[in-house]
Amino acid sequence: MLPFARVSVIGLGLIGSSIARAVRATMPTVALSGHDADPAVRARVAELGLVDDLADTATAAVTDADLVILCVPPGRIGEVATAIADELPADAIVSDVGSAKVRVLAELVAALPGRKVVPAHPVAGTERSGPDAGFATLFEGRWCIVTPPADADPIAVERISEFWRRLGSQVETMDAAHHDRVLAVTSHLPHLIAYTIVGTASDMEEVTASEVIKYSAGGFRDFTRIAASDPTMWRDVFLSNREAVLEMLQRFTEDLTALQRAIRWGDGDALFDLFTRTRAVRRSILETGQDDPAPDFGRRH
Amino acid sequence: MLPFARVSVIGLGLIGSSIARAVRATMPTVALSGHDADPAVRARVAELGLVDDLADTATAAVTDADLVILCVPPGRIGEVATAIADELPADAIVSDVGSAKVRVLAELVAALPGRKVVPAHPVAGTERSGPDAGFATLFEGRWCIVTPPADADPIAVERISEFWRRLGSQVETMDAAHHDRVLAVTSHLPHLIAYTIVGTASDMEEVTASEVIKYSAGGFRDFTRIAASDPTMWRDVFLSNREAVLEMLQRFTEDLTALQRAIRWGDGDALFDLFTRTRAVRRSILETGQDDPAPDFGRRH
Repeated sequence: MLPFARVSVIGLGLIGSSIARAVRATMPTVALSGHDADPAVRARVAELGLVDDLADTATAAVTDADLVILCVPPGRIGEVATAIADELPADAIVSDVGSAKVRVLAELVAALPGRKVVPAHPVAGTERSGPDAGFATLFEGRWCIVTPPADADPIAVERISEFWRRLGSQVETMDAAHHDRVLAVTSHLPHLIAYTIVGTASDMEEVTASEVIKYSAGGFRDFTRIAASDPTMWRDVFLSNREAVLEMLQRFTEDLTALQRAIRWGDGDALFDLFTRTRAVRRSILETGQDDPAPDFGRRH
Repeated sequence: MLPFARVSVIGLGLIGSSIARAVRATMPTVALSGHDADPAVRARVAELGLVDDLADTATAAVTDADLVILCVPPGRIGEVATAIADELPADAIVSDVGSAKVRVLAELVAALPGRKVVPAHPVAGTERSGPDAGFATLFEGRWCIVTPPADADPIAVERISEFWRRLGSQVETMDAAHHDRVLAVTSHLPHLIAYTIVGTASDMEEVTASEVIKYSAGGFRDFTRIAASDPTMWRDVFLSNREAVLEMLQRFTEDLTALQRAIRWGDGDALFDLFTRTRAVRRSILETGQDDPAPDFGRRH
């Protein structure tokens, strides 16, 4: 039996449009409704035929749903939840896909008192944005973390979990605060560092921007992929998960200072020890199937 | 006409073995000799049949060569150059492939007085090491930077340049000091940052190592590829290019501090502006063909 019969996707960018495509592919009998605040996105979604019922407002998109997934930037979650509150069917479950959960959970619960709120975070994506960037297999083999409130209905949690399993994901449940600390390390700090280094490199005077581009295959280009991710979403992620990000950043800065000192004083052993340890981390990621085992991410040469 | 007839490759890891394979593929009449200090690597190179004449010492490998390419870690360059000095044919050109050039150039010139020294740096590689990791097309479409001393013989510089063009590279010439500053930005700083963040993430107490691995698709896994690069080589690169690396690191740290402050004070506009600017850098890299244009580096999903 399908976990949901009528799914509404609010926000049809990379993630929302991928959910729509994946639902079509894996649960074709589900009735799909959707909305995006951007008229240009709505027009494109209509052309692509991604949903059965494309609504002009978020409110109109949820009237029949038994699952509503908010795929909007974290900074807009509260506002959208407030907008749909009155029209939301009483037994509908509301979820989201954001990368920071504590604040989103609080905002959803505040905007939708007494409703079934079960946030989730599919740890998947690419650096592209918009409805053309989505694809049905985006979530296959990836983890989805469900972060229910402490008093959540266990059946609602199981239905959301089953929904993500149907889309091909493995599902883990954890509390929102722990999620935010884990993702601060595995996602937010890496993005922050990538954005910074790409900014630093493009601000050089003596080394020209064209040299930075030209010789980027030495390592720099890897960072530019992440630093091409959606600016609005990432601004909101950092503002939403401020405390955990700042703490991880503090640890990173301490470690970087130690490495800087090792270079300054020519402590080759300290460098060698760290570089050997980090190599083992890559090995674990490949062994657990969390990255493409081909050299250089399988880039075409 | 071929730029060289008898090429000797000292050090047969990822880069050295790729050169041997690429020479075979593009200049099959060239006589290839080679040596590696590690007997296990020599045994494997013999099995793979990568060179015509595999010598037990670096000295024995260069006696007939008109080009000697040292593909050893930067920290061993001086020692190997000294070892081959007496047996090196008078008109042979000596080059290398290292990622930091000022110190290497000085060491080569000191060890080989009056000889033709023309260092070069193919900006290409993968995170793998050893003779099995090499492949003939590694240098195709990539840049190779030639860094001749100020008094270099122009014909020797042109022969080295032509050699790399034959292997499929585009060649640029610049002085060693400028090279080291450019690569400090485009390669050394990115590696340093990647090594650091992978170390930071694996040192968490509250977030377990297995969680870091499991949810690495959120961004972290990108950094682990670079941080899996050869520890010996990278230790030597940082020690060889200390001044430029420390300067770039200082700039990076300043920029990171500014971003940290923007997050702490909730300055969303500053974040959004940077994230928009960095997105444009990625676009330039794709437009100039310096990365795979497929989303997510073309990783298989």
